[in-house]
Amino acid sequence: MITLGVIGTGYWGPNLVRNFVNLPGARVTRVSDLSRERLQHMEKLYPFLETTQDYRVLMDDPAIDAIVIATPVSSHAKLAREALSAGKHVFVEKPLSSSAEDSLQLVRLAREKSLVGMVGHTFIYSPAVLKIKELLDSGELGEVYYVSTTRVNLGLFQDDINVVWDLAPHDLSIFTFLLDAEPERVQGVGHSYIQPGIEDVAFLAYTFPGGRLANIHVSWLDPNKIRRTTVVGSKKMLVYDDTSNVEKIRVYDKGVDVHRHYDTFGEFQLAYRFGDIHIPKLDDGEPLKVETAHFLECIRQGVPCRSGLEHGHHVVCALEAACLSMREGGRSVEIEYNLSRAF
Amino acid sequence: MITLGVIGTGYWGPNLVRNFVNLPGARVTRVSDLSRERLQHMEKLYPFLETTQDYRVLMDDPAIDAIVIATPVSSHAKLAREALSAGKHVFVEKPLSSSAEDSLQLVRLAREKSLVGMVGHTFIYSPAVLKIKELLDSGELGEVYYVSTTRVNLGLFQDDINVVWDLAPHDLSIFTFLLDAEPERVQGVGHSYIQPGIEDVAFLAYTFPGGRLANIHVSWLDPNKIRRTTVVGSKKMLVYDDTSNVEKIRVYDKGVDVHRHYDTFGEFQLAYRFGDIHIPKLDDGEPLKVETAHFLECIRQGVPCRSGLEHGHHVVCALEAACLSMREGGRSVEIEYNLSRAF
Amino acid sequence: MITLGVIGTGYWGPNLVRNFVNLPGARVTRVSDLSRERLQHMEKLYPFLETTQDYRVLMDDPAIDAIVIATPVSSHAKLAREALSAGKHVFVEKPLSSSAEDSLQLVRLAREKSLVGMVGHTFIYSPAVLKIKELLDSGELGEVYYVSTTRVNLGLFQDDINVVWDLAPHDLSIFTFLLDAEPERVQGVGHSYIQPGIEDVAFLAYTFPGGRLANIHVSWLDPNKIRRTTVVGSKKMLVYDDTSNVEKIRVYDKGVDVHRHYDTFGEFQLAYRFGDIHIPKLDDGEPLKVETAHFLECIRQGVPCRSGLEHGHHVVCALEAACLSMREGGRSVEIEYNLSRAF
Amino acid sequence: MITLGVIGTGYWGPNLVRNFVNLPGARVTRVSDLSRERLQHMEKLYPFLETTQDYRVLMDDPAIDAIVIATPVSSHAKLAREALSAGKHVFVEKPLSSSAEDSLQLVRLAREKSLVGMVGHTFIYSPAVLKIKELLDSGELGEVYYVSTTRVNLGLFQDDINVVWDLAPHDLSIFTFLLDAEPERVQGVGHSYIQPGIEDVAFLAYTFPGGRLANIHVSWLDPNKIRRTTVVGSKKMLVYDDTSNVEKIRVYDKGVDVHRHYDTFGEFQLAYRFGDIHIPKLDDGEPLKVETAHFLECIRQGVPCRSGLEHGHHVVCALEAACLSMREGGRSVEIEYNLSRAF
Repeated sequence: MITLGVIGTGYWGPNLVRNFVNLPGARVTRVSDLSRERLQHMEKLYPFLETTQDYRVLMDDPAIDAIVIATPVSSHAKLAREALSAGKHVFVEKPLSSSAEDSLQLVRLAREKSLVGMVGHTFIYSPAVLKIKELLDSGELGEVYYVSTTRVNLGLFQDDINVVWDLAPHDLSIFTFLLDAEPERVQGVGHSYIQPGIEDVAFLAYTFPGGRLANIHVSWLDPNKIRRTTVVGSKKMLVYDDTSNVEKIRVYDKGVDVHRHYDTFGEFQLAYRFGDIHIPKLDDGEPLKVETAHFLECIRQGVPCRSGLEHGHHVVCALEAACLSMREGGRSVEIEYNLSRAF
Repeated sequence: MITLGVIGTGYWGPNLVRNFVNLPGARVTRVSDLSRERLQHMEKLYPFLETTQDYRVLMDDPAIDAIVIATPVSSHAKLAREALSAGKHVFVEKPLSSSAEDSLQLVRLAREKSLVGMVGHTFIYSPAVLKIKELLDSGELGEVYYVSTTRVNLGLFQDDINVVWDLAPHDLSIFTFLLDAEPERVQGVGHSYIQPGIEDVAFLAYTFPGGRLANIHVSWLDPNKIRRTTVVGSKKMLVYDDTSNVEKIRVYDKGVDVHRHYDTFGEFQLAYRFGDIHIPKLDDGEPLKVETAHFLECIRQGVPCRSGLEHGHHVVCALEAACLSMREGGRSVEIEYNLSRAF
Repeated sequence: MITLGVIGTGYWGPNLVRNFVNLPGARVTRVSDLSRERLQHMEKLYPFLETTQDYRVLMDDPAIDAIVIATPVSSHAKLAREALSAGKHVFVEKPLSSSAEDSLQLVRLAREKSLVGMVGHTFIYSPAVLKIKELLDSGELGEVYYVSTTRVNLGLFQDDINVVWDLAPHDLSIFTFLLDAEPERVQGVGHSYIQPGIEDVAFLAYTFPGGRLANIHVSWLDPNKIRRTTVVGSKKMLVYDDTSNVEKIRVYDKGVDVHRHYDTFGEFQLAYRFGDIHIPKLDDGEPLKVETAHFLECIRQGVPCRSGLEHGHHVVCALEAACLSMREGGRSVEIEYNLSRAF
Repeated sequence: MITLGVIGTGYWGPNLVRNFVNLPGARVTRVSDLSRERLQHMEKLYPFLETTQDYRVLMDDPAIDAIVIATPVSSHAKLAREALSAGKHVFVEKPLSSSAEDSLQLVRLAREKSLVGMVGHTFIYSPAVLKIKELLDSGELGEVYYVSTTRVNLGLFQDDINVVWDLAPHDLSIFTFLLDAEPERVQGVGHSYIQPGIEDVAFLAYTFPGGRLANIHVSWLDPNKIRRTTVVGSKKMLVYDDTSNVEKIRVYDKGVDVHRHYDTFGEFQLAYRFGDIHIPKLDDGEPLKVETAHFLECIRQGVPCRSGLEHGHHVVCALEAACLSMREGGRSVEIEYNLSRAF
């Protein structure tokens, strides 16, 4: 039985509590939140919970094996550091931290302490992303040329982080997972329309090893919610629309063949293939359930964590580099991970 | 009666011939094309046409008042120059030319000769764009913050021009028309996946006077055709989906209000308004018919041309600057129009 | 404080428990189910519940004011009768019973005992149906000519009731509510494809007072889920698509005007109006929450129940008549309500 | 070279002229119409046409091999009869006639004269319907249980025919073609909302040999245009949406398996299979081009006509029976074809 304490029961925390409560082999004993009202709400839902406004009660409780952190981003690093220092495994909501310096330190600390650290990058536990990964790994799409995401909506504007830190972590986690690699550099263009100094629209162009480009368009200024990822392969193309209930993934049997004929007329030819569309059935299942179960499994069996602290650190580095590029006029910024410094 | 000759009867030329043939007060007497087969096809459709493989026959025909040019982009400037020099009005397909130097020269020449020059930027004659213009001018959307277009499809790859020159002229013409202004600078990021040296994916971020940003995402590498423009205003937002048959424009009664309360808690508040959606009925009517009729009207009555050579020149300058930015690592490039040099 | 007991915690019962548990002024003390496993699940979620496999424990508990029945249809009448006889208010899932004879008896019994009886016709508590009612009552649609519903999906085939009893109760409740009237007669056509004797596809044509027609197409044999209701009025038309997340209702500013010119040519003219489309914003809120709160209000304040036993009886009579018509070759069947016999 | 004359150049006639003009091996020499204006329009488009307001000029012209009839339905039979009597092949727009008595006579006449008669049931020449036929014939869908069509829009109300004669000919032609059989009987329910005596909404339930049901819902009173056909087979299901530009056909890998277990608990089990969706690529090509070319081929090579007069007669008989059922309270009406009387 793994015993958990949860810090932060605002927007996302209750989902984490619900999932951990329902998992066999786990129990949640304590939750903390600054808001007395939120705590009363949790007590009503789960009468067995002990609640407190002081998160340190959880850190000091020797019965607690793991701490779940679902607080605002700015407090992630501090809380995770304290939890790891107290000898507890940590599950931190995404993004792992608000600076690469912090996330690198967490990677190092977890290694030193041999504790499990996991970041709540839920998408890479979702049936849709797992199906895309399967299609890529099977070679059905051929060589991947290009990945592009549009992730826009009328935003929940935040006053501490910009739209890149709010929305792009999803795509960076997904791309890193799908391409089995981390981006090498990035050019970003952003703009602040509503709150001076806090970008609400951004276009990011990441380059992955092998010259694969990954574009990300994020915005808090679109009246329509769009969650659309395109994967262009040499054999097939794929569109993943996360707002669709039943047809999230469409595989297009279309592709581009490059044929060059250097004949007397120097004619250039390019063949198009247009074909059928295939909409694969996806497994049901709540990604968060899979994700929380994976956290328990990592603790119990020591399996490598799919969204471990390194993964979270990669995302944070990529976000930081994008913002640097945006502020320096869109220049191409090399992304430094410095993971060697974690040892 | 205005007499026209049409050069180029390949992809788009036949539509121009059909429209000019059906307009009262106009007649098409001659068409030229390099392909004998295309000319035979035109003869079958319009037995009254005189056809030739030598476009100079049209230039030399004193009965012809205006020359319509629907040839590949690279020949636009040369042919338009010859037509103007021969004292004929010109209608040139978009984009006006492949360099700003050339388009500037055409502006100058038409002015000197007091001839009408028009560029085939069809979209600004379409019911949808005219409705958006009406909504903007009426103040219904409030102040425009931001305009964004996604114009992607599985491309008709071309070996002489890149995706920016192929697709972005539409958006630049539309934005310039809607915002009553020309862009001041641009940052572009592009990539060549299929043909070395010819970008097939690009993101362009234009800045218009007043700091209004206009984003353009063009791609030949998307299996789904998307033609989607978002206009974000202070009062309402609007989405224009040109692939929809009957619901091209949606006006969202959603907006963003900025309220800042510097109270003791320094709390920041931002109000969202979500509301109804309105889908206005659009007029029927082929944009090309309106456009061709406008050309005749400009010749007959000397009214200013909505898509005159200056308009076409603005678009060419903006395209050229975007490509420069793309090739110089995304740096912000000032757009020079040099129209003073046209006099 | 109103104390409730819930019989049946299978498919829909847990939603009722959750809503009643969360309502101020109510408490659920006991639940019963034949399945020991379901009861254990409820105990885990709500540790304060007393559970039993014998529903009579609830009937006999003097502390219980109202009984909620969420069992299979065939047991509704028997359980509701026992509850009313035991002096308890009842909330019965839809349809109220499997025969008009039974539902009539329940109406009579509740009246005699002066107890509240309510049927779980949730749709008439939903924001979408309430908005349609508002549009109709305001006269915005003009006179209603015709209502039509398509309610099809790949069915959860049931072996005790046919598709009419499974799906049409929703539409009959909605139509009765919207038109403020009960249907007078019905013609039905149905077919059994999968299970002999149990119709899985049916078309029902109801006539409401004033000659208004209401068509219902229900099917368990459609691979796509469709929930689409059309309301055709003399001024405007409306489509209600319940599968849409954010655009459930569309009001079409289209209508039909009948102009008859008996001139010398005897020409018949009919004018069409085509216009804008309007998508009204709907309130949020779970219909079941509104519905369960209404039940408490009916008990406490004696307000008339929007989906009381009479309403439920109307629906049962209309269902029964449709099935009779289907089995008698589609003949037009008069619907008898016999409510005078309820006194 | 086959020489054609076309009677009627109103709504649909010009499309027929255009197609026959462009087909190799055919020429259109004369057209007739009551409207002088329509004839002038045709002269402008095709200067080589001889036009007349008197259709008998065409009948009397010995150079004309075939007559194309695109006039209002009520005149079809009379004109076709005259053409056949004059020894000319006929192409008649759908429906073939307004009574089964008439269409039977035309079948007989064409046989006696050994002339080709064809009805303009265009849909069975369309890539979508041909693809469905291919899927059915290959056995991919299994045994067909049920076919259902919704064909509704805001109607072009007509004062001579009702919505059944206007819209249902398409579905009857398609179903007859797909199922390789003619319907045996029909129950119909209809209503007249706008024009007394002319039904504008109807539901028709046809039974085909083998007990296969085919439902047709037609309406002139729906603000949304819907053209949706569902084919439910034992192995797969299919939805054909003719309003979709690029995804007309979706094959659902869903089906229904009937397993009956008469075990001690008498439990009934039904298995559902849910699976992938497949959207086949369809050929391009205008159905009318294929159809008109087929007419020439039938004349030249004597191949059997896919939409010959018998096919057209089947459709007319099925329409007539549906209207009879509608007017007799929805009783089941046997459909008599009497083709033996055609010999």
